[in-house]
Amino acid sequence: MKEFKGIAASDGIAIASAFRLTEPDLSFKKRSITNASDEIKRLYAAIDVSKDELLTIQQRTLEDLGSSEAEVFKAHVAILSDPELLKRVKSTIEKEKVNAEYALNKVTDGYIKIFNSMTDNEYIRQRSSDIHDVTKRVLSHLLGVPLVDPALIHHQVIIIAHDLTPSDTAQFVPTYVKGIVSDMGGRTSHSAIMSRSLEIPAVVGFKGNLAEIKNGDTVIVDGSTGNIIVNPSDAQKDEYAQKQVDYRQRKTQLADFKYRETSSSDGKHPIIAANIGTLDDLDGAVENGAEGIGLFRTEFLYMDSNHLPTEDEQFNAYKTVLQKMGDKPVIIRTADIGGDKDLPYLDVPKEANPFLGYRAIRMSLDKLDIFRTQLRALLRASAFGNLSVMFPMVTTINELKKAKNILNQERIKLIRDKVRVKPIRIGIMVEVPATALLADQFANEVDFMSIGTNDLIQYVMAADRGNRMVSYLYQPYNPAVLRLIKNIIDACHDNNLPAYMCGEMAGDQTAIPVLVGMGLNEFSMSASSILKSRALIKRLDSREMVTLANKAVTMASTSEEVTAFIRQATNEIQ
Amino acid sequence: MKEFKGIAASDGIAIASAFRLTEPDLSFKKRSITNASDEIKRLYAAIDVSKDELLTIQQRTLEDLGSSEAEVFKAHVAILSDPELLKRVKSTIEKEKVNAEYALNKVTDGYIKIFNSMTDNEYIRQRSSDIHDVTKRVLSHLLGVPLVDPALIHHQVIIIAHDLTPSDTAQFVPTYVKGIVSDMGGRTSHSAIMSRSLEIPAVVGFKGNLAEIKNGDTVIVDGSTGNIIVNPSDAQKDEYAQKQVDYRQRKTQLADFKYRETSSSDGKHPIIAANIGTLDDLDGAVENGAEGIGLFRTEFLYMDSNHLPTEDEQFNAYKTVLQKMGDKPVIIRTADIGGDKDLPYLDVPKEANPFLGYRAIRMSLDKLDIFRTQLRALLRASAFGNLSVMFPMVTTINELKKAKNILNQERIKLIRDKVRVKPIRIGIMVEVPATALLADQFANEVDFMSIGTNDLIQYVMAADRGNRMVSYLYQPYNPAVLRLIKNIIDACHDNNLPAYMCGEMAGDQTAIPVLVGMGLNEFSMSASSILKSRALIKRLDSREMVTLANKAVTMASTSEEVTAFIRQATNEIQ
Repeated sequence: MKEFKGIAASDGIAIASAFRLTEPDLSFKKRSITNASDEIKRLYAAIDVSKDELLTIQQRTLEDLGSSEAEVFKAHVAILSDPELLKRVKSTIEKEKVNAEYALNKVTDGYIKIFNSMTDNEYIRQRSSDIHDVTKRVLSHLLGVPLVDPALIHHQVIIIAHDLTPSDTAQFVPTYVKGIVSDMGGRTSHSAIMSRSLEIPAVVGFKGNLAEIKNGDTVIVDGSTGNIIVNPSDAQKDEYAQKQVDYRQRKTQLADFKYRETSSSDGKHPIIAANIGTLDDLDGAVENGAEGIGLFRTEFLYMDSNHLPTEDEQFNAYKTVLQKMGDKPVIIRTADIGGDKDLPYLDVPKEANPFLGYRAIRMSLDKLDIFRTQLRALLRASAFGNLSVMFPMVTTINELKKAKNILNQERIKLIRDKVRVKPIRIGIMVEVPATALLADQFANEVDFMSIGTNDLIQYVMAADRGNRMVSYLYQPYNPAVLRLIKNIIDACHDNNLPAYMCGEMAGDQTAIPVLVGMGLNEFSMSASSILKSRALIKRLDSREMVTLANKAVTMASTSEEVTAFIRQATNEIQ
Repeated sequence: MKEFKGIAASDGIAIASAFRLTEPDLSFKKRSITNASDEIKRLYAAIDVSKDELLTIQQRTLEDLGSSEAEVFKAHVAILSDPELLKRVKSTIEKEKVNAEYALNKVTDGYIKIFNSMTDNEYIRQRSSDIHDVTKRVLSHLLGVPLVDPALIHHQVIIIAHDLTPSDTAQFVPTYVKGIVSDMGGRTSHSAIMSRSLEIPAVVGFKGNLAEIKNGDTVIVDGSTGNIIVNPSDAQKDEYAQKQVDYRQRKTQLADFKYRETSSSDGKHPIIAANIGTLDDLDGAVENGAEGIGLFRTEFLYMDSNHLPTEDEQFNAYKTVLQKMGDKPVIIRTADIGGDKDLPYLDVPKEANPFLGYRAIRMSLDKLDIFRTQLRALLRASAFGNLSVMFPMVTTINELKKAKNILNQERIKLIRDKVRVKPIRIGIMVEVPATALLADQFANEVDFMSIGTNDLIQYVMAADRGNRMVSYLYQPYNPAVLRLIKNIIDACHDNNLPAYMCGEMAGDQTAIPVLVGMGLNEFSMSASSILKSRALIKRLDSREMVTLANKAVTMASTSEEVTAFIRQATNEIQ
């Protein structure tokens, strides 16, 4: 028996046997060949199979996991379609009379050497590693050695892997994968997010040597605590079987909260809404009792495609959501594209700091055709439900006025054309510190504000949360963050506006008590957090939470002090 | 006569004849050769001359312009030393029996093609363009066609160029270059910054077709307004000659302010200090009557070198500054390295958003050996003057406490070793929004704060000021920025601490009235701004500026409204 710790990445408990994702043997010898054209045919056959495989995986990933996860396979296919690369491999076979394995490897190795000798840039390391991955895939077909294929798993397993690539997860049959242990990544890594969305218990950032877990070992994964037990004793098995039962029971209890109105113990009624990223997320929102859609991200329309979405494509998507939600409020955010979300067909320059760059409303106000198309689609859809529109990354009042002005122009055109248009509530996503600081001024120009904590925290702390070296500075409970949030909420209430939140923080069980205390009017979160959040709020007395919130913003100087206050305030009531 | 407009980039007026920086003819033919080893010798000879040339330029640039400007030549030399590249060129000459020009061009062209086909990343475009530049240089030596060499200029000229590369400016004899016109860049581009540091009138971002200016045309450059007149009338010549006289007169008048104490018209005495980046900047600071050093950046010690600076190297640099300034206060900032300031010998990973990354105190607290060495050097230097130490990019109280704790450990060690150490004032650079928001809490832990507006504005507005697409959002006068600055200054004063500023904004003639109104205690700026700022403050009544500052933070909703308030308040008193 051995015990290990890691980062709790996806709730729940799993007990099953270990399945290690290992590397195949792709070694080969250099051979002289006589018939170059036969060898080239062999090469192209392997490339074609690889491409088909990649397209299938890409498609499956797109459907199961979303467009950003599918992106890497697009890049892989692009490499296999690069004329420069193919020309070089072909000419190596022809000129040197060598086998395809050798020629391919020589050329891609040359690429990788050039990349590595000329630069140590992160982006290029990614390209190098893409080329490496693609070479492996084509080699596997040339050599007839299958890559280890997670799709082969047909019994219940705990996956043990250095890191789970989107390609790995795309091939899982989720019912067989009971748990995941990896030694890379944090709570916001690919593996972690994917595990949560598939509801598979997972521990990432494994502390220890993964090699100590052998194929077939019995493994317990506690995704709520980060505990891992290899070859547990019978007592431990019993203990965790009981924990598993408890966990499931609690999930069932939560289901009771599905049809209840959200309410604090003293009868305050904030709304709990859902964040959705695609139409597929709608069912989850409804099933978990969302009282509205607090954030409908429209990027998928732009990213899951090789062209700009037409007005009708957009109209249909918006209408679907509005109709499905009926009377319930739906907030649709205009496109937050650009920056790190690269759209090949848009030709946006790469940036040194994409998070501080040309994206969202900044791009919309620059590419007005795209913006007008989206606004027209939204206006037309307004007739089919309870629509609010919000603009992302608004930084100045002038930007907001421009955006509103354009919306109004399109409204007038549609009305002139006798298209039915209902009044729309207009809001901004508050995610830039400048906007949070000037919330009182912005309040004169909007019907509501929705706090986008993911970006706001990054900017307030000047720390990219995707950057491991500074992720310790991504502190939702830092008093500076809380002061800014309170400033926004207060400015809204002083101007009789509702204040919403649609960042991760809205569904964070530690943050919710403080946010209730600040009087936040709507918590919008991923569907899977709704029921437990509603259950939590039911246990809170909003008046006590007001005291907590005031303490946090005036007395605390660190994140740790804030969490201590929260612990104290919520333990008292439990 | 033709008139044009551009961006005013460097003050002053110049009249001289145009000198166009044009491209040389580097065309060549493919030739068969018989003696490959002779051809390779020819290649290496050209490479060696090119390297020597690059090293000379690099050295000259380092001395005249600084380390970041010299960086590109280091990259160029590195390309010419890349074994993979040389191997390929050599083998092309040997195998294909072709001339060196052709072989070199074929190989580098291949590199560029690979880079361009695989990626459209900004960093790679830079590498591609570096390879392109280096190839040109080697070709020029192979072909005996000199690159157009600005060092050849031996009469007074206005340089007309698409863009001025650091390599161009490094070769100028500044006395011959009277003015600069380029059609690339903005006020913070290389060309612009370099022009200001050399005090050469310059207009960048030329609006129009540069080809309309011919070699030898008489050109007037007004670097204060961005006006350009080609072949002016006699009346215009007279007008601008008069303006030139006025400009110089005003500079002389300003010289009167050199030995005066800074004072507002009603007798408030903020201090005007200088920002310095190297020891070379010290003379300028003293000559312009700096009342202290408000920011001594220590990065040059780390960047102008291929190794970490030793404790003694640092001690000597710090001691030099302290001794030169005598009793006057000197604030030395610990190293702000990392992020976009790449140190090849440090092996810091490249980041997706370096401005939100691992840099400054974040790196210092992670690489403690480097940090302790710097702190020891500072402590030892403290005996030689009036030293304050400040930590950059502090984001949380915990970071600050850790840094102070380490400083204290080193102090105790030195005292134990009987090394003379004077008390040091400890401060933080406030450049992260979180720190600005929590200034009241930070006030318990420091002796002063210095507001670093360059980064603070970037973070508050979530806009990289180096990114042309969003540079309109770099708004020093945005009310949100001003509110945050006022919050910092008020927190300092409430806790009996002085508040300083060392960003560009401190020397900004538009911002100074508001900052005087907020009661800023020290304005630290580049030496060239000191006298005009002192003259400006002398015209201001601090009580009226208090009213202005309060109006700006409470009533304004946009940057434009703030500048209108400032214009109104300062016109009234002029």
